[in-house]
Amino acid sequence: MDDPQYAEVNQEALYRIFTIPEAPDSTLGKIEKHLSENLMGFLGEHIVTREKPLQDIEKDFQASQLPELPQFVSDHTEFLLDKLVAHSVHTSSPRFIGHMTSALPYFLLPLAKLMVGLNQNLVKIETSKAFTPLERNVIGMLHHLVYGENEAFYQRWMHSAQHALGAFCSGGTIANMTALWIARNRLLKADGEFTGIANEGLAAGLQHYGYKRLTIMISERGHYSLGKAADVLGIGRKNLVAIPTDDNNRIRPDLLRQACQRINDEGGKVMAIIGVAGTTETGHIDPLDELADIAEAYQAHFHVDAAWGGATLLSNSHRHLLQGIERADSVTIDAHKQMYVPMGAGMVLFRDPAMVRAIEHHAEYIIRQGSKDLGSLTMEGSRPGMAMLVYSALHIIGRRGYQMLIDNSLEKARYFADLIREQDDFEVISEPELCLLTYRYVPARVKQALTQANAEQVQRLTPHLNALTRYIQKRQRENGQSFVSRTKLTPPQYHREPTVVFRVVLANPLTTAEMLADVLAEQRKIAQKATSLLGALRTELRELGLLEPH
Amino acid sequence: MDDPQYAEVNQEALYRIFTIPEAPDSTLGKIEKHLSENLMGFLGEHIVTREKPLQDIEKDFQASQLPELPQFVSDHTEFLLDKLVAHSVHTSSPRFIGHMTSALPYFLLPLAKLMVGLNQNLVKIETSKAFTPLERNVIGMLHHLVYGENEAFYQRWMHSAQHALGAFCSGGTIANMTALWIARNRLLKADGEFTGIANEGLAAGLQHYGYKRLTIMISERGHYSLGKAADVLGIGRKNLVAIPTDDNNRIRPDLLRQACQRINDEGGKVMAIIGVAGTTETGHIDPLDELADIAEAYQAHFHVDAAWGGATLLSNSHRHLLQGIERADSVTIDAHKQMYVPMGAGMVLFRDPAMVRAIEHHAEYIIRQGSKDLGSLTMEGSRPGMAMLVYSALHIIGRRGYQMLIDNSLEKARYFADLIREQDDFEVISEPELCLLTYRYVPARVKQALTQANAEQVQRLTPHLNALTRYIQKRQRENGQSFVSRTKLTPPQYHREPTVVFRVVLANPLTTAEMLADVLAEQRKIAQKATSLLGALRTELRELGLLEPH
Repeated sequence: MDDPQYAEVNQEALYRIFTIPEAPDSTLGKIEKHLSENLMGFLGEHIVTREKPLQDIEKDFQASQLPELPQFVSDHTEFLLDKLVAHSVHTSSPRFIGHMTSALPYFLLPLAKLMVGLNQNLVKIETSKAFTPLERNVIGMLHHLVYGENEAFYQRWMHSAQHALGAFCSGGTIANMTALWIARNRLLKADGEFTGIANEGLAAGLQHYGYKRLTIMISERGHYSLGKAADVLGIGRKNLVAIPTDDNNRIRPDLLRQACQRINDEGGKVMAIIGVAGTTETGHIDPLDELADIAEAYQAHFHVDAAWGGATLLSNSHRHLLQGIERADSVTIDAHKQMYVPMGAGMVLFRDPAMVRAIEHHAEYIIRQGSKDLGSLTMEGSRPGMAMLVYSALHIIGRRGYQMLIDNSLEKARYFADLIREQDDFEVISEPELCLLTYRYVPARVKQALTQANAEQVQRLTPHLNALTRYIQKRQRENGQSFVSRTKLTPPQYHREPTVVFRVVLANPLTTAEMLADVLAEQRKIAQKATSLLGALRTELRELGLLEPH
Repeated sequence: MDDPQYAEVNQEALYRIFTIPEAPDSTLGKIEKHLSENLMGFLGEHIVTREKPLQDIEKDFQASQLPELPQFVSDHTEFLLDKLVAHSVHTSSPRFIGHMTSALPYFLLPLAKLMVGLNQNLVKIETSKAFTPLERNVIGMLHHLVYGENEAFYQRWMHSAQHALGAFCSGGTIANMTALWIARNRLLKADGEFTGIANEGLAAGLQHYGYKRLTIMISERGHYSLGKAADVLGIGRKNLVAIPTDDNNRIRPDLLRQACQRINDEGGKVMAIIGVAGTTETGHIDPLDELADIAEAYQAHFHVDAAWGGATLLSNSHRHLLQGIERADSVTIDAHKQMYVPMGAGMVLFRDPAMVRAIEHHAEYIIRQGSKDLGSLTMEGSRPGMAMLVYSALHIIGRRGYQMLIDNSLEKARYFADLIREQDDFEVISEPELCLLTYRYVPARVKQALTQANAEQVQRLTPHLNALTRYIQKRQRENGQSFVSRTKLTPPQYHREPTVVFRVVLANPLTTAEMLADVLAEQRKIAQKATSLLGALRTELRELGLLEPH
């Protein structure tokens, strides 16, 4: 074309990018090999990330104008490797034990490429075909893992057009939101002249049923996505009622029951009770059976947020920890957490396959009534075929393989807790129920002093220890040898004083005992150099009269 | 281990899947090569899909029990190739012109593998590092494409912690929902004793501001995700007001203005006005400038759903079609539609970088106040690094490359419309404004008769033609040579009678004029064999006295 606006764009070259390349000695074949080697190199290095301040990285990513001219794939990949990959976080590193994003089995990489290349869209059979039954199969198997219904049940419902055993989601947040959306719509359903909340809206629903407010009950350790859900669904964050926890970060059923009764008495309605199966901060599991009883008593939807801990059901040795989950109306499980699948694989399961009717929707050009298009039953619209990666991981690892991985993670967490306890200058703050625990560094003298400190003394010492913990965590992250995260808890042993702690998630099968010892050694070393923080701590200790050993 | 529950699981083999394979002659290297070849083979075949009834496919995916034992990767991939890939939809085929899911440039496949392998989580800097500035950069460039603010604007806001120029989402549905969530929360913001809807809920907000109801205004051609959003946000589907369209499927501003006034007069409040830039069914664009005026007059949030059509802004020759989009408060664009990026790349852009405050949220262990963690500003939580694929496509194709692709798609649509018009037995139902058009098969005699049929005659003929269109579309899909979709419209030229039409989206650069001719030829051939449907049509024609040529 002569048009100057196309100058320097070669149409033939442009169309070639959509044409199948002749593998593997084509340019693209070579680039692919180069990228793969580089990725393996990155994943093979035992450092968490090459440190560069975020502000400096931002300088590489601040052009506001779109690039005008095409760039060679090879040039662009060099840029990516240099400016992006090199400054990514090595989430697969066995020394990256700070978050729930962990190792990936390598067989998932070629499968992910296949999945992306097929570019199916699960919204509709016409753009997904076999991926739709596959996704329903994955949801069905997870449903069986949680609810264990009989074979006839799955034969009947797994592929039924107007039913769903669950929904595949981009992540746990959308999964939790979907569960609460269903709970809300079922509660304020059509009734007489009232055509239902989906049609008339929340205010009309509250008015029709005469409820002053709806509430969602959750322990104070509940995930922040639930606050978001309460906001999005129009319920309001203040109606997400946080119930205090016991000494093991589990919801107090007695206090929950009182709160439910009070809400009822005041003309409100408990819409949902949420049990947490693996809190994000401490990994503890709420007493699900007791929550189910309370949900029954108050006719509330019972949801279990097992986004992280749900995979424990794959271990016959530990699934009893989630006893009662089978009584939940809905359950969230993220395959991209303890099921070792890449980011983007959330799921919500529904005990009753007809529950999804509360949010069903149709359109003429897509997801027509009576079709098996999944788009009519999910919060999201167009969605990729991520379910394939869950399906493959389940088959290639097998339930017994998962059991071994999960059991080993739990053992490792208990081992690490023991190791921490053996040190003079570290202490466990929350014990591992699953493979998550919290701890902190406390100079030996302070640790000893704390054993006999009163509430006021603890209150005065804690800010200094918090500053030290923060300092160590940041410095260790910057060193790039290993990574633990941090959070703030209110430990009962320290009079519920807000306490900053290190948080570790031990789900990477390649993390060794030696690496765990290294983590502590490095933290100790960093701490010993924090002279001004240690000085302030010593001064405080002296002022409190706690300096001399007793 | 001796434990029988681990029987037949070899720990060493299990751990090996997390260990870097020795490429490329390792087993996994071979499997990867095999998969790549197979994928290229699949994508190379010029058929849409190997036909097998859905019920038969479901039989391969109905196990409810999780697989107990591990399976070899090689065995599993054979299963996938045979049972899944072979029965997937060939969305990249140049003859698959029925949906907005289209071709992918091949360079995205190795990049997707890299992205999955890095497994970054955008919720938090600690799990994403350089991916966070990269994603903000992508959002910034798209913001510039829409709003064209000056350099200083982007310098100031692109990487600002408590601001956002937009949000990356799993798709257009979440993007639209996010925009309306923000609109709702800004409207019912904190005021005096009222602490805001996010905290107190929708009913309290309506009461505080004295609104009887909130409404969302949209043309009758609006996307079904907006009904979902109205439901989720508690506004109610009946408060999503569908405004009639003109003869070109564009919202009628006069009727919109009347409806807004009526809602105001009745004590309601217009929360948002949505303009569609590329309707899903016909590809038409609402008069955005006029909508902006009306939104201003009624102080409503102005959102533009440009999920599909937004990419047109990349063409300097056609961006004027979206004139007025720069006045929108928020805009949805899906990169996985006309930007040729794989499924899962939705975006919503915000004119005002502070707008996101209305939905900001924090948590102690993650997305802490003051951090640059994106998790505090999005509806979703954990999210993959999909933005990288958008970034790469923008750089490798370049704006001029996109312009060429988009201009060629539009030309092709106009060419196809002309081709259809030339036929005795086909007719265009809606003209292409972008690269989307609708048409149908009408036997020559009927086509001629329709030119002089009155409303009643049209009404009696249409069901027969609808049945024929449905029959052809299904049969063509089953034949697997090519694929067009279908929908139901109410064309003005046929007295708004509900009319089933073929719908084509011509975004695949490899679709040729010959292929388009083949599509028509095949449809004609299928139609000619539909003897009973044609017979019924002839009978109807005779009864209407329209059989004889005039």
